[in-house]
Amino acid sequence: MEEVPQNDRDSNGACIVLETARRAGVEVCFANPGTTEMPFVGALDKVSGVRPVLGLFEGVCTGAADGYGRMAGKPAMTLLHLGPGHANGIANLHNARRARTPILNIVGDHMRGHLKYDAPLTSDIESLARPVSVWYRRVALETDLARDTSEAIGAAMGAQRGVATLVLPVDLQSASVSARAPHPLPHVMTPSFDASRVARVAELLRTRAPIVLLLGDRALSEEGQRAAARIAAGTGAVCLGETFPARTERGGGLPDIDRLPYFPEPALEALAGRRVVLAGARAPITYFGYEGIPAELARPEDIVILAEPGEAADEALSALAACLDAPPVAPGADAARWNVEHGPLNPQAVGRIVSNALPEGAIVSVEGGTCGYPFVTASARAKRHTVLTNTGGAIGQGLPVAIGAAIACPARRVFALQSDGSAQYTIQSLWTMARERLPVIVLIASNRRYGILQTELVRSGLPADAPHASRLTVLDDPPIDWLAIAQGYGVAAERVRTTQALELALDDALADLGGPRLIEMCLP
Amino acid sequence: MEEVPQNDRDSNGACIVLETARRAGVEVCFANPGTTEMPFVGALDKVSGVRPVLGLFEGVCTGAADGYGRMAGKPAMTLLHLGPGHANGIANLHNARRARTPILNIVGDHMRGHLKYDAPLTSDIESLARPVSVWYRRVALETDLARDTSEAIGAAMGAQRGVATLVLPVDLQSASVSARAPHPLPHVMTPSFDASRVARVAELLRTRAPIVLLLGDRALSEEGQRAAARIAAGTGAVCLGETFPARTERGGGLPDIDRLPYFPEPALEALAGRRVVLAGARAPITYFGYEGIPAELARPEDIVILAEPGEAADEALSALAACLDAPPVAPGADAARWNVEHGPLNPQAVGRIVSNALPEGAIVSVEGGTCGYPFVTASARAKRHTVLTNTGGAIGQGLPVAIGAAIACPARRVFALQSDGSAQYTIQSLWTMARERLPVIVLIASNRRYGILQTELVRSGLPADAPHASRLTVLDDPPIDWLAIAQGYGVAAERVRTTQALELALDDALADLGGPRLIEMCLP
Repeated sequence: MEEVPQNDRDSNGACIVLETARRAGVEVCFANPGTTEMPFVGALDKVSGVRPVLGLFEGVCTGAADGYGRMAGKPAMTLLHLGPGHANGIANLHNARRARTPILNIVGDHMRGHLKYDAPLTSDIESLARPVSVWYRRVALETDLARDTSEAIGAAMGAQRGVATLVLPVDLQSASVSARAPHPLPHVMTPSFDASRVARVAELLRTRAPIVLLLGDRALSEEGQRAAARIAAGTGAVCLGETFPARTERGGGLPDIDRLPYFPEPALEALAGRRVVLAGARAPITYFGYEGIPAELARPEDIVILAEPGEAADEALSALAACLDAPPVAPGADAARWNVEHGPLNPQAVGRIVSNALPEGAIVSVEGGTCGYPFVTASARAKRHTVLTNTGGAIGQGLPVAIGAAIACPARRVFALQSDGSAQYTIQSLWTMARERLPVIVLIASNRRYGILQTELVRSGLPADAPHASRLTVLDDPPIDWLAIAQGYGVAAERVRTTQALELALDDALADLGGPRLIEMCLP
Repeated sequence: MEEVPQNDRDSNGACIVLETARRAGVEVCFANPGTTEMPFVGALDKVSGVRPVLGLFEGVCTGAADGYGRMAGKPAMTLLHLGPGHANGIANLHNARRARTPILNIVGDHMRGHLKYDAPLTSDIESLARPVSVWYRRVALETDLARDTSEAIGAAMGAQRGVATLVLPVDLQSASVSARAPHPLPHVMTPSFDASRVARVAELLRTRAPIVLLLGDRALSEEGQRAAARIAAGTGAVCLGETFPARTERGGGLPDIDRLPYFPEPALEALAGRRVVLAGARAPITYFGYEGIPAELARPEDIVILAEPGEAADEALSALAACLDAPPVAPGADAARWNVEHGPLNPQAVGRIVSNALPEGAIVSVEGGTCGYPFVTASARAKRHTVLTNTGGAIGQGLPVAIGAAIACPARRVFALQSDGSAQYTIQSLWTMARERLPVIVLIASNRRYGILQTELVRSGLPADAPHASRLTVLDDPPIDWLAIAQGYGVAAERVRTTQALELALDDALADLGGPRLIEMCLP
C-alpha cells in the first residue's frame, strides 16, 4: 500500500485524487494554484511521487502539460484556480485538444455551498471548459473522488484522447476521507485499425491511380513513416505529412516526407488530380477560408480513409505495406551537414544551422513560420529528432511545450524554435525553465514584426504600410530587448546576427546542461 | 457625413462596424488581431477617429478596455482573434463583468462558410464568451452589421452594464456594403433610483437602530460619499465601502470611509449587530467559503436595499440625506502628508509614501494586498484621486487597467500599485505603456512570494514551509529581475530598498511625462 500517506489520518480528498492519479501513472503537476487549491497543495507534500512544477501564468502550465503528454504518451495533471485561472489556460488546452494530448486538467473551485452566493471569483467553469475538453465533471461527493479521477484519466487516454477537466470544490479537497475508497485503475484504450480499410486501400493503390498518402498522428511515428515510404516506393504514391502534426519523428535516415503546405494555393497544387488516402490525418482543408478558394483541398469523393486520427495508423500502414508486398526501402542517408555560407542570418540559414546542431534524440518545439518552415525543409538531414508543432493555432504554445518535453524526457536535448511575436503570449515560461534547470535552448527568431499578418494583409489586397495596419503588425517601437527579458527570468542569453555567431552560440549552449539558454537570432 | 470613408467605394463591413461604434462614442480599440481580423485592421486606416492600441497579449487588451471604461464611462472596443485569442482575454473580462464596465468586445472569426470544416482555430466562441458577457451575438448578415454593433453598445451601456461580445466573421468584415445602412445610435440607459426605497430607509434610520451603510458602485462617487457622510453624521450610521470597488474617489477632503475587510472574521465584526443598508453594493458575502464561517456576512433579514448596483446610488443617497434633513458636513481635512521614518521599506511605509506623492487628480490602479491595503488605509489624507481595484479576483488586472486609465485620462497621472506575483500574468502590459508613451508609474511590491497563499495555507492549518507548498508559493528561485524585465519592454526602471529612495524615485518619476517608469520596491 505504498500509495497511502505516511500518516493515514492526514489523508483527505486531495490525497485521494493524487494517489489515484499517481497509481494511474501521473507523475507531474503543472500548477498555478490559488486559495481554493490550498488543500491540494498541502496534499502534494503528503503523497509522494507527483512532482509539482510552478508556472507564473496558467498558459505555461497547460502548454507544458501538452508538451509532456505528447512526449510521455500519458497525462500530466494541471492545477488551476477556478474559472478565471482556467481561462488563462484555455488557449493551450485548445492546442492540446487539436493534438489529442491526454491531460488531467484539475480546476479548483469554491466550497460547494459557496457557489450560490456568486462570489467575485465565481464563474461558469463548465461553459469555459467544455470547448477544450473531451470530458468534464465537477466532483459532487467525497465518495466519488477516486472514481471521478480514474474516469477522467480513462477519458483523457480513451478513444477521444484529450483534455479531461475535473473540477474539485475546495471542501472536497479538504474533506477527511476515512473509509479508503477503492482506486480502480482507469481503462486505457489501445489503438487499433480496421483491416477492411487496409484491403480497400491496397486495391486502390494497385490501380496505380495518382495518390497522396496524407500522414498524421501515429502515422508520423518511425514505423508509420517507414511503412509509408515502402508503399510509396512500391506504388508511386506520394507521401505528405499533415501541416501541423502533434509529433513527428524526423532525420537520422527516416524518409524525407514533406508537409502539406500551409497556404491554400500550393496545398491545392500538391493534391491536384490525386486521390487522398488519409492515414491518421483529417481530410485536408484550408487553415483559413479565402474568397474564391475551396476550403476542401481534396474533393470528398477523392478521399479514402485508411485510419482515423487516434487509430493505429502506423500499424495500418505496416499492414498495408505487407499486403502490397511493398519492397523494403534502403534507409535514407545518414545525417549530413548543410554547408552554410558565412554572413548575416536569414531564415534559411537558421533552418540549416539548427538542423546541423541537433544532437541525436533532440526534441524541437517549433512555433511560428519565420524559421519554422525553413527548419522543416532542412531537417530531414539532421540526426534523429522529434518535432512538436502548434496544432491548434493558439499562439504562445512553443515555449511551454518545450518545458513539458524537457520534463518528460530529461535525457534528451530540447530546442524551442520560436517566433518573437508568439513567444510573448507565454513569456513567463522562461522563469519555469530557469527554476527547474531545464537545459532548453530557446531560439528566438527576432524580426520584430507579426510576419504572417503582413503577408495576410497583402493577400487581402490591403496596404501593410498604412499607418494603423503597420502599427498593429510591426513590433519595433520599442524593440523587445530579448537579452533583458531573459535576464529578468534568470535565463542566460546572447544575441547573434551572423551564421558563424549562431553556430558558436549553439555549441556553447549544447555544452551547458545546467539550465536554459536563450539565443536571440536577429533577422531582417 | 464625416463618418463616411473618404472613398466610399472602399467601405466594407468592418468600416460599418467602426463608423457605428465611433458615432456612438467609441474612440479606442485595444487590439491583438490575427488573420481573421485583417479587414478590420484595414478599416482602421479608412475610418478615422478610432485609435488602435496594440497589446502583445489579449489579457492586456481586455484589462485596458476595463480600465478605460471605468474612467471614461463609455466603452472601448477590443479586437481579438477567434476563440483562442478571446480566451486569453477572458480573465480580465471576468473582472470587467464584476466591475460592470461597458466594453464592446469584438472577436473575429472564420468566414461563415468555413466553420463547418472545424479548422484548427475553430472553437465554440459562444460557450467561451457567454460567462463574461451581458450580451453576445454572432453577426449573421452584412445588412445586420450596423444594427448589431449599435445594439451591442446599447447592451454594454444598458441596465446590465458590462461586456457585449460581437463576433464578426471575416467575410462580413470584408463584404462590400454599397447600400449604406442606417446607423441608429444605441439607446443608453440613464441610471435612476427608487424613491420609495429612500423613504423606507429614511424611516429605518430615524429609528436610530445600529446601521451600516455599505457603499458600492456609484455610491463611491464624490456625491455619494458626501451624502453618505451627512447621513452618518445625522443618524449615527457607519459608512463602509465594498471591499473591491470598481472605482472610488478618495482624498482631498472627502470623508475617510473605510472598506469592508477582506477576511471574514473582521468583516463579520464590522457588521455585527447592525442592519446593513446597501447603496450600490451587493449583499456582503465572504470572498471564499471557509469551514465554520457563514458566507453571508449579514443575515438576509438585516439587509435593506437603498439602491442596486447600476442604479443611481449616489442620487439615492443625496435624496436620503435631504429626506432626513441631514446637516451638511464640514469638508474633511485638506491633504496632509504622513511622516515616514527613514529606513528599510515596509508595506505601511509604502502606503504612506505613495499617498504623500499623489498629485491632484491621480488615478491609482491597485492589485494585490501587500501594499494595496496599507495604501488604502493611508490614502484618505492624499490629494483627490481615484482608486481602481481588482473587482473579480482574476489576477493580472492592475497593469492593463492602468493602461486603459491613462488613455482615457491623458491629463491625469496614473499609478499602478502592483504585487509582484500578479504583475506577471499580464507583464506584456509594460510594452504597450512604453509604445504609447503613457506616463504610468508602476510600483512593484517585490516580496518574491505569493503572500496571500502563504496566509491561506496557515489559515488552513497547513505548513507553508513544507517543501512543495513552499516551492509553490515562494518566487525567489530565481528571483525576478524587475529592472531587466522593464528594460526588456523599453520601460525606464529603478530599484529601491529604503523609504528615502522611494520618495526620491517618485519625485523623479513624477517629473517625467515622457513615458512609463517602473520602481521595484524591495520588501521583506
